[in-house]
Amino acid sequence: MEELMPFELSIEFRERFQLAVQDNDDVFINESLSGVKPADISALLEEFDSYESKYVIDILSPDDRAEIINGLEPDTREKFLKLFSHEELTSVIVNLDSDDAVDLLNELPLVDREKVIAGLDNSEKEANILDLLRYDEDVAGGLMAKELIKANHNWTVVQCIEEIRRQAENVQKVYSVYVVNDHDILLGRVSLKRIILANDHTKIGDIYESDQISVETFVSEEEVAQLMRKYDLDAIPVVNVQGKLMGRITIDDIVDVITELAEEERNAMAGITEDVEEDDSVWMLTRARLPWLIVGVFGGFISAKFIGVFEEDLMRITAIAFFIPLIQATGGNVGIQSSSIVVQSLANPSVFSDNLFNRLFKVLLVAMLNGLVLSLMVYGFNIITGGTGDLATVVSLALFGVVIIASFLGTLTPLILDKFGFNPALASGPFITTLNDLLGLAVYFYTIHLIL
Amino acid sequence: MEELMPFELSIEFRERFQLAVQDNDDVFINESLSGVKPADISALLEEFDSYESKYVIDILSPDDRAEIINGLEPDTREKFLKLFSHEELTSVIVNLDSDDAVDLLNELPLVDREKVIAGLDNSEKEANILDLLRYDEDVAGGLMAKELIKANHNWTVVQCIEEIRRQAENVQKVYSVYVVNDHDILLGRVSLKRIILANDHTKIGDIYESDQISVETFVSEEEVAQLMRKYDLDAIPVVNVQGKLMGRITIDDIVDVITELAEEERNAMAGITEDVEEDDSVWMLTRARLPWLIVGVFGGFISAKFIGVFEEDLMRITAIAFFIPLIQATGGNVGIQSSSIVVQSLANPSVFSDNLFNRLFKVLLVAMLNGLVLSLMVYGFNIITGGTGDLATVVSLALFGVVIIASFLGTLTPLILDKFGFNPALASGPFITTLNDLLGLAVYFYTIHLIL
Repeated sequence: MEELMPFELSIEFRERFQLAVQDNDDVFINESLSGVKPADISALLEEFDSYESKYVIDILSPDDRAEIINGLEPDTREKFLKLFSHEELTSVIVNLDSDDAVDLLNELPLVDREKVIAGLDNSEKEANILDLLRYDEDVAGGLMAKELIKANHNWTVVQCIEEIRRQAENVQKVYSVYVVNDHDILLGRVSLKRIILANDHTKIGDIYESDQISVETFVSEEEVAQLMRKYDLDAIPVVNVQGKLMGRITIDDIVDVITELAEEERNAMAGITEDVEEDDSVWMLTRARLPWLIVGVFGGFISAKFIGVFEEDLMRITAIAFFIPLIQATGGNVGIQSSSIVVQSLANPSVFSDNLFNRLFKVLLVAMLNGLVLSLMVYGFNIITGGTGDLATVVSLALFGVVIIASFLGTLTPLILDKFGFNPALASGPFITTLNDLLGLAVYFYTIHLIL
Repeated sequence: MEELMPFELSIEFRERFQLAVQDNDDVFINESLSGVKPADISALLEEFDSYESKYVIDILSPDDRAEIINGLEPDTREKFLKLFSHEELTSVIVNLDSDDAVDLLNELPLVDREKVIAGLDNSEKEANILDLLRYDEDVAGGLMAKELIKANHNWTVVQCIEEIRRQAENVQKVYSVYVVNDHDILLGRVSLKRIILANDHTKIGDIYESDQISVETFVSEEEVAQLMRKYDLDAIPVVNVQGKLMGRITIDDIVDVITELAEEERNAMAGITEDVEEDDSVWMLTRARLPWLIVGVFGGFISAKFIGVFEEDLMRITAIAFFIPLIQATGGNVGIQSSSIVVQSLANPSVFSDNLFNRLFKVLLVAMLNGLVLSLMVYGFNIITGGTGDLATVVSLALFGVVIIASFLGTLTPLILDKFGFNPALASGPFITTLNDLLGLAVYFYTIHLIL
């Protein structure tokens, strides 16, 4: 085996390669990249600017070009493709699977998109791409590729193998052959293993499995991911409302969907508004972080004004101020925990979910238990460290109230966000913390005002 | 096609099914579950207690039993398997792939595990399982299954098909045939597609691809996931240090790994210590949430004592207290953002990472930019709403300091946690918020003490 471990890039190699690009040292570039996998070349090109990358791509064999471009990060690719002529773009598109081609086309300005598609000259590719462009990116129709192998149920195994041979170039990973009737209605599938083991003249209709799970074009990417994960599928056929076979989604695309959803969730929880990485520019990183920080500062400023209302109480008993951080931190922590549990159950819906009333009742029980333990702890701390009994009582009471309110707020916010089509994980981010800060302070200061 | 969409469970069905289990209505149970996929039966059984589930499982055909049990959630399964005799467990194990068998064995008490393995009677299964039990669960060796199809490079296509036929029962998803030499050293792979299209008497050595990526047994599950995602692999062979083929990991297991890692990260960020779901018991949910809440309360209590030190300042200028929430919330938000960006880059390491000094310099730049904007905003707010210039200056200065400190803390904490083998996402949770609260208050009150 030539190469057991993946291609390793050293910093020395990057510097040597950079020099080669500057000196137009085509021989070095070609030699050092020969035999390197397209995915590794994509990773290398991420390190260079668009002009340098274009120079490298133009030297390489056209066969790998499309795959390397497809492997670039979307934002790098978008910049990079600006340097391509329409003819070059068309030749890249021709060499991509229809789903990847559509993703790439969607990154182009509308006017370029049309010219590139026109360059496809009414081929089957053009028809496939035009079909796929109709779907949203985040539903089954937008994820599927048109490339697949299908066989009529009346065919024999030999005819089926002939079809595989005919399509071998177009369909890289076959997994299964989809079985359809004369009207292209999906009937089921035959695995390649079964085809290999079957007699040449067996009819496909006699060996296919009819209980294949499929999805309709409008099913959301989250649902497709859940189904493929639940049933351990490596590919899932996509059908239209009539049951006609439209395309298939392969597991590698779903792995990407799952990873992206997890990243979106992390960003939402951390209050980052764009998909940034550590090696993005200072400007991009700042832009992605400021919006939620400003929301937080704005919330903090309202808090300041709110506490100002209670200035007299504060002047009377300065010790009130000591417990502001405790109240606030606990409210924030409880809120994030609650919303995170809801986000988790939205991501993995159980077969039967309880009705809202039962759910909220349980939230109340958990909140009361948590609130009780924490309040007693704080009361104990306060008494042991020589605080006054009155203030200790007020702080514990307020803390209990904050835990209850933050639990409900944390539970309801993601449900409401989800209902209106927003990412529910936003509820575990700065938004919930800011809201909880305000409500927590309100509970605390009103309790003080009433009791002390 | 019998069934296009997945099995739908209604609440009415659950109730009817529950009755059937109570009344020992075997006919209803059998009829209603006939043709239902094992994964759906697993989901249904999650709704019932162990005794009820055992009753249902015993009625069903033994063929599906192992798969249904394998599809249960680990904690449900662990309870459920307590009701099984050693003989029953052995018969389940025999029907599972070696990787799933080992996962299940790991859930049993040690003494049961040995008895169940002994029941395998020195079969090939026993040898496979004993081999796999040697590896940690979170490395390639612990993820791989022994079931795979391998062919000697001297074989012909016909011999290879014969081997596929022989192993057809054991290996559900074939994807590729792995090609080895006489010493079982991995040479490469042939896809099933290629086997179908090749001439019967072609030698495997002439058609295999030698640039197959493989991993050694000790590679971490995160790295395996990254490789399979990068190269769009549906299966990856696992070799030992000599390059001998030991097993293979399929993409469905990696999809589970990715999902579980994302869940762990979400829990770490939210400060939840166990893998709980909304439908777990009130007790479990409380237990999972209390530890970090207590840490937060403890931090809040230290804050209270700390602010107490500045009681005189507070009595002099009560308005100091107004801005505690602002300082604290901003510190928390900045810290979580910073750590989340580091966690992201640890999860998707770029090919070349900058050295620590350059990274921290960039963190400083971003922090200064953010800090400047926020401080100016707060200064403006304060002046517009009629605050005193002195306090406005102090608050803005302290805020700027807090943003800088929280940025460094948020960047370094996940790096340190990762270095010592902890989950870096813990740094985006209550831990960082608590630490930031304390440091933020320190900066704020010392600034006040020095200037005002």
